[in-house]
Parts: sequence; structure tokens; C-alpha cells
Amino acid sequence: MQKVAPQSEATERAVLTHVMLDLYGVDFKTLNDPEQISDILTGAASVANLHPLADPAVYRYPGQGLTVFLPIRESHFAIHTYPEHGYASVDIVSCALAERAGRARDFMIERLGADRFDSEVVFRGFLEDES
Amino acid sequence: MQKVAPQSEATERAVLTHVMLDLYGVDFKTLNDPEQISDILTGAASVANLHPLADPAVYRYPGQGLTVFLPIRESHFAIHTYPEHGYASVDIVSCALAERAGRARDFMIERLGADRFDSEVVFRGFLEDES
Repeated sequence: MQKVAPQSEATERAVLTHVMLDLYGVDFKTLNDPEQISDILTGAASVANLHPLADPAVYRYPGQGLTVFLPIRESHFAIHTYPEHGYASVDIVSCALAERAGRARDFMIERLGADRFDSEVVFRGFLEDES
Repeated sequence: MQKVAPQSEATERAVLTHVMLDLYGVDFKTLNDPEQISDILTGAASVANLHPLADPAVYRYPGQGLTVFLPIRESHFAIHTYPEHGYASVDIVSCALAERAGRARDFMIERLGADRFDSEVVFRGFLEDES
């Protein structure tokens, strides 16, 4: 697991911290429950001191599966769930300190109760010196 | 620029193709125009044969800047714009053939008219053999 640590020189220069989190072995019912998934997203924003701009937008798929999007002042959270595979893909994108995205990620891992997960952090948006 | 090529063995095994696209030197007005940005997202979905589930959801920031989210049957498109920096961050996430995400990306690069861009492709979701 890549650490989302206190700011390094590289992260200080990036506009966005993007955490990609892929979780496996998650309970079917959890992944197919719009309220529970929405609560986990807003809970993750809260523990990370990130600020929702609206209620989570929920999209349901025929049979099973959800997409839930949470716009935040600092960018967004998104999740796609595949209950039939126990799989969920999560994006945490934030212009706040990288460490906050890490807190959101840790909360989601714990609350989704995955058997295993992959986590990757990408720093995005390197503006040229405008001075 | 990383190529989003026809399926390789690795991409065939992944649930999702995630294209991260960061564009620089984009016109302020374009980046601050919700209709134009929404049209570019739906246009990109259309050329890539990806299927919107709803109209784009637009969130405006005080002063300037937009977040636009487009849920598609195959996952989602999201964009965050920073007109004051000429910068936009785009995510194209799709469970369809990787090549389609590439078509969507190429369309967005052309329509946003960036001076330069970075593009990265991540394959996500590797399910264990369930047989």
C-alpha cells in the first residue's frame, strides 16, 4: 500500500491528490445498499475534513450495482460497486493536503470491510511558475 | 502519452480502464462555461459509444471553476476546471473496451484545445478466478 503521507516537495506542487482504491471481498448487501454506501462516502469526507457540496448522487444498475458520486468543495469522491463480485472501485480526488485524502481512504477501507485492497496515489496538476 | 490500445492480456482481465488526463493552457472561457464543458463530456461519451445515464451534473465554484460529473452505463466521466490556471483534470472510467476510453480522451483533448497535457492509463479491478 502506498502511503498518503505528510506533504513532500512533489505533493506540495501538485494541484490534486488522487487516491485510487480497489476493494475485494466486500459484502454483497453493503455494496448494493445506496444508503449505506452514501453514508460511507459522507462519513469519509467528514473524518477527512472535506466538504460535500451536495447530497451524494446515486445511480442504480439493473440487477445490482451502484455508482455514487459525492462532489466536495475540494473535488470529488466516486464509487462503483459490483456486488456480484464483492468488488468496489473508489476515487478520492482532493485539492486539500494529501494526508486528508489518506484519512478518507483509511475510513472507507475500514467501513467497507474488504478482504484485500489495492491503493494507488497519483499527484496531478503541475502548474508552471506563473511569477 | 500512454496509448490506449486494443486489448492486451492485462487489460482484458481488468474490470475498469481509468484514463487520467490533465490539460494545461486551456482557454479561460471554455473552462468556465458549464454548457460547453457538459457538451464536451457528452460528446466524448458519444464518439466512444459510451452511454450517459443522466444529464451531466454541474457544480460551480465561487469566482470561477467547475466540477462536472457524467454517469455512464459503463462508469463515469468527471472534470474539474481551474480557469484561472488554464488547467483541467479529467477522469474517464469505463468497463468497456479500453480503446473506447482512448477515443473519448482524444476527443476531449481536441475539443478543449490544450497547449499540453499528461495522460495516464490505469487498469483496475482484477478479480480472482471464480470458476
